[in-house]
Amino acid sequence: MYYVDLNSDLGESFGAYNIGNDSGIIPLVSSANLACGMHAGDPVVMANAVKLCAAHGVSIGAHPGYPDMQGFGRRELALTPSEADMYVRYQLGALSAVAESLGGRVTHVKLHGAIYNRAAKDYALASAICEGLAKVNPSLIFLGLANSEMIRAAAGAGLRAASEVFADRAYEDDGTLVARSKPNSMIHDEDEMVARVIRMIKRDEVVSVNGKIVPIKCDSVCVHGDGARALAFVKRLREAFADNDIEARKMAI
Amino acid sequence: MYYVDLNSDLGESFGAYNIGNDSGIIPLVSSANLACGMHAGDPVVMANAVKLCAAHGVSIGAHPGYPDMQGFGRRELALTPSEADMYVRYQLGALSAVAESLGGRVTHVKLHGAIYNRAAKDYALASAICEGLAKVNPSLIFLGLANSEMIRAAAGAGLRAASEVFADRAYEDDGTLVARSKPNSMIHDEDEMVARVIRMIKRDEVVSVNGKIVPIKCDSVCVHGDGARALAFVKRLREAFADNDIEARKMAI
Amino acid sequence: MYYVDLNSDLGESFGAYNIGNDSGIIPLVSSANLACGMHAGDPVVMANAVKLCAAHGVSIGAHPGYPDMQGFGRRELALTPSEADMYVRYQLGALSAVAESLGGRVTHVKLHGAIYNRAAKDYALASAICEGLAKVNPSLIFLGLANSEMIRAAAGAGLRAASEVFADRAYEDDGTLVARSKPNSMIHDEDEMVARVIRMIKRDEVVSVNGKIVPIKCDSVCVHGDGARALAFVKRLREAFADNDIEARKMAI
Amino acid sequence: MYYVDLNSDLGESFGAYNIGNDSGIIPLVSSANLACGMHAGDPVVMANAVKLCAAHGVSIGAHPGYPDMQGFGRRELALTPSEADMYVRYQLGALSAVAESLGGRVTHVKLHGAIYNRAAKDYALASAICEGLAKVNPSLIFLGLANSEMIRAAAGAGLRAASEVFADRAYEDDGTLVARSKPNSMIHDEDEMVARVIRMIKRDEVVSVNGKIVPIKCDSVCVHGDGARALAFVKRLREAFADNDIEARKMAI
Repeated sequence: MYYVDLNSDLGESFGAYNIGNDSGIIPLVSSANLACGMHAGDPVVMANAVKLCAAHGVSIGAHPGYPDMQGFGRRELALTPSEADMYVRYQLGALSAVAESLGGRVTHVKLHGAIYNRAAKDYALASAICEGLAKVNPSLIFLGLANSEMIRAAAGAGLRAASEVFADRAYEDDGTLVARSKPNSMIHDEDEMVARVIRMIKRDEVVSVNGKIVPIKCDSVCVHGDGARALAFVKRLREAFADNDIEARKMAI
Repeated sequence: MYYVDLNSDLGESFGAYNIGNDSGIIPLVSSANLACGMHAGDPVVMANAVKLCAAHGVSIGAHPGYPDMQGFGRRELALTPSEADMYVRYQLGALSAVAESLGGRVTHVKLHGAIYNRAAKDYALASAICEGLAKVNPSLIFLGLANSEMIRAAAGAGLRAASEVFADRAYEDDGTLVARSKPNSMIHDEDEMVARVIRMIKRDEVVSVNGKIVPIKCDSVCVHGDGARALAFVKRLREAFADNDIEARKMAI
Repeated sequence: MYYVDLNSDLGESFGAYNIGNDSGIIPLVSSANLACGMHAGDPVVMANAVKLCAAHGVSIGAHPGYPDMQGFGRRELALTPSEADMYVRYQLGALSAVAESLGGRVTHVKLHGAIYNRAAKDYALASAICEGLAKVNPSLIFLGLANSEMIRAAAGAGLRAASEVFADRAYEDDGTLVARSKPNSMIHDEDEMVARVIRMIKRDEVVSVNGKIVPIKCDSVCVHGDGARALAFVKRLREAFADNDIEARKMAI
Repeated sequence: MYYVDLNSDLGESFGAYNIGNDSGIIPLVSSANLACGMHAGDPVVMANAVKLCAAHGVSIGAHPGYPDMQGFGRRELALTPSEADMYVRYQLGALSAVAESLGGRVTHVKLHGAIYNRAAKDYALASAICEGLAKVNPSLIFLGLANSEMIRAAAGAGLRAASEVFADRAYEDDGTLVARSKPNSMIHDEDEMVARVIRMIKRDEVVSVNGKIVPIKCDSVCVHGDGARALAFVKRLREAFADNDIEARKMAI
């Protein structure tokens, strides 16, 4: 039997604005990364998502981002590492209080959007954030991009690191993601996506954009929570799991 | 010997914008109510204020307000009680994480501005907030206006309530504040302000705007953290305390 | 032949967040009220909506609201009349620059949400706003609730007032809207909605919630730009117009 | 006789937060660059600053920045050029409406903070913004850093460009500013600051950080509106102007 976590970025609605299908996706994943009110989400949205996670036994994760609602946290914003650290502690704490008051608990953290991309390559930033998280709660799992600086920074800060992989992204020979600005950065064929994920889970390897077999650790697979095909793809992936002796379960805590 | 808490609203700066004299006032009070990033404050400002409080042994309080930075939380905003509850949990959690990660701890909560004024009169709102706070942390002290619905709501939610009085505000015959829109709502003479505070502390009474002696519980005296005279007045009040066998110390926790 | 304006609140998306079906609705209405970035909308969303309006010959209106993105401008916020005036001038100017730079022009203004509801009853607020608008551009048409203080205030400020009616709302005997909090405030049957609109247009009257025939001026009918049935209802209404010698055309400018 | 514009960044307060000394500085400068509500300022602050400018015959300029109040527009934010263009049109329009409704007029534009620094080096960004501004109002003067891409972009867009110099900044051999991160980037001695400005005005040259004489066009000198010495320095500079046959007057419009 193989085990892997399935995670999705959720709780991204904001006031009257809806993004994602929280009630549809949460029952199908093992970990939900919930926006914390700076790039998406608000206290009421957070509370509703927490309740869904608690009802379905899904691991609740903080999904902090840059303070840029207008840009959905996807625009690089030049926070210093120490500013970013405090903004992340703030967001983690906000979600933790909401979660704990509703009978849940934040067990992991995954950065969002532009700060995720930057921390994947910027050890100083990743390290400042992980050191700060460890001061808030040393038992947190830090979910970061496989083979990235985030994984090294989490280990350096004494946090358990979990490596995340993507079904729909191509990988370079060094195991990092092909930048979206480059050709062939995305995998579009769903059969191929599923096959790649199965291989990453069972054999800890992926075929790079250049055709090389590259080692990759796969603790958690990210599935989209938004978009027309999101729900169908998660269901399909879970069926493939069943056919391959893979069980989706939350990261060990 | 008499004991009373001295509290001040601090941590109200925001990015490049400064309000208040945190480093001057914190050493002189026993409790600091720190803004939590919705009406004032930001994660970096919060962290700096927490460090000052920790260094001076001052009780750290969350000072949540309406999400209205432009109005500094002073404009009434028609949140429902359940929305307000979640917004307050969020703010408490955000400050708690920042505080705990820096070796501090949030031990009390005081509402800010328009939501404070509304909760003083609106039991449903005050109760929703206090019930929510008790779910986050039942050992919190809820600091509210003496003789107001906040005190009743805190007790109803099982939180310890602390009654706050103001040196510069006139009181009605029922022990509530004279609205600022009415004549004679403010006390301007500093001698009178000091004398009124001493009387409230020692005798649990205040002379109302109509000349009646009114009972008032005085667990904590609010002093301003901003304005030209703020620092001088706190010093003066502390001198009067020394002359009257009154010791400023934080609320029992 | 009868003439009436058909207006809809649009341009309400915000960054990654979508609300409404601008490209579907704009070709079917004669006036579009575009959010101006305080309660909804952003500069890019505004520009896209302006381009659609220009392409379809639709009157561009500013749709200013309270500065409360989280509450979508639907929560009452206690701005003073003079603050509200300046916030409205700001929003009108922002949209005007975007529109004019793209070959369009703002020809009308309609308030949004909570400030609309408040201005309908609060002459001082409505008047402060209309006086301010007249200083920005005295040729603007002010689109307000029929029989409300907005219509009186616009006239008092020298602006042309246009009276707006709703297909799905019940009216009191004095021609004002039945508050949503009251029973029977909404009309749910589409046949009835269409019939009521036709009667308002052709006979300047509506049957109140108490069964009385009440005079109502109908310069413009508001249709929703969001929701599953929005597009279908506008099409149906336009068919009924065709059957009743009614032509939808923008307010005279 | 020599003529030069004196400009200052003002209108930077926000709600209860004050920055700068608008009423002290405005009477001493010929051009005021007013924040437009995205990185600083709000509609009421803008209105008050406009009134002061109108009263003192000072040229009103829009001072648009990144939408980042928390960072005061000083943190780089990765807007695309076309997003930045629309955000700038929006801010210009907002101020223009406020100004015109109060009897004033926006006659120039100067970017703020991080977007100013980026546009100084990024022609594509500067050009997108200047093209957009020209579509809003082709008679605007675009005030940009001397010798920078902003000056070239303004000319390319058909706007009149005005070159700005700084009293307290060192210059590279190519006439651009020494980055603040480098040593000797700031001039601290006030005598030297005054002498450098006089030389730039009278002889269109400045001594670079490497000791070379570098040509520089000086249409406008930027003076700070904030800080303890701001007011005193402006007064001192104006005295030096009087001694050197230099008259401060707004840019030709």
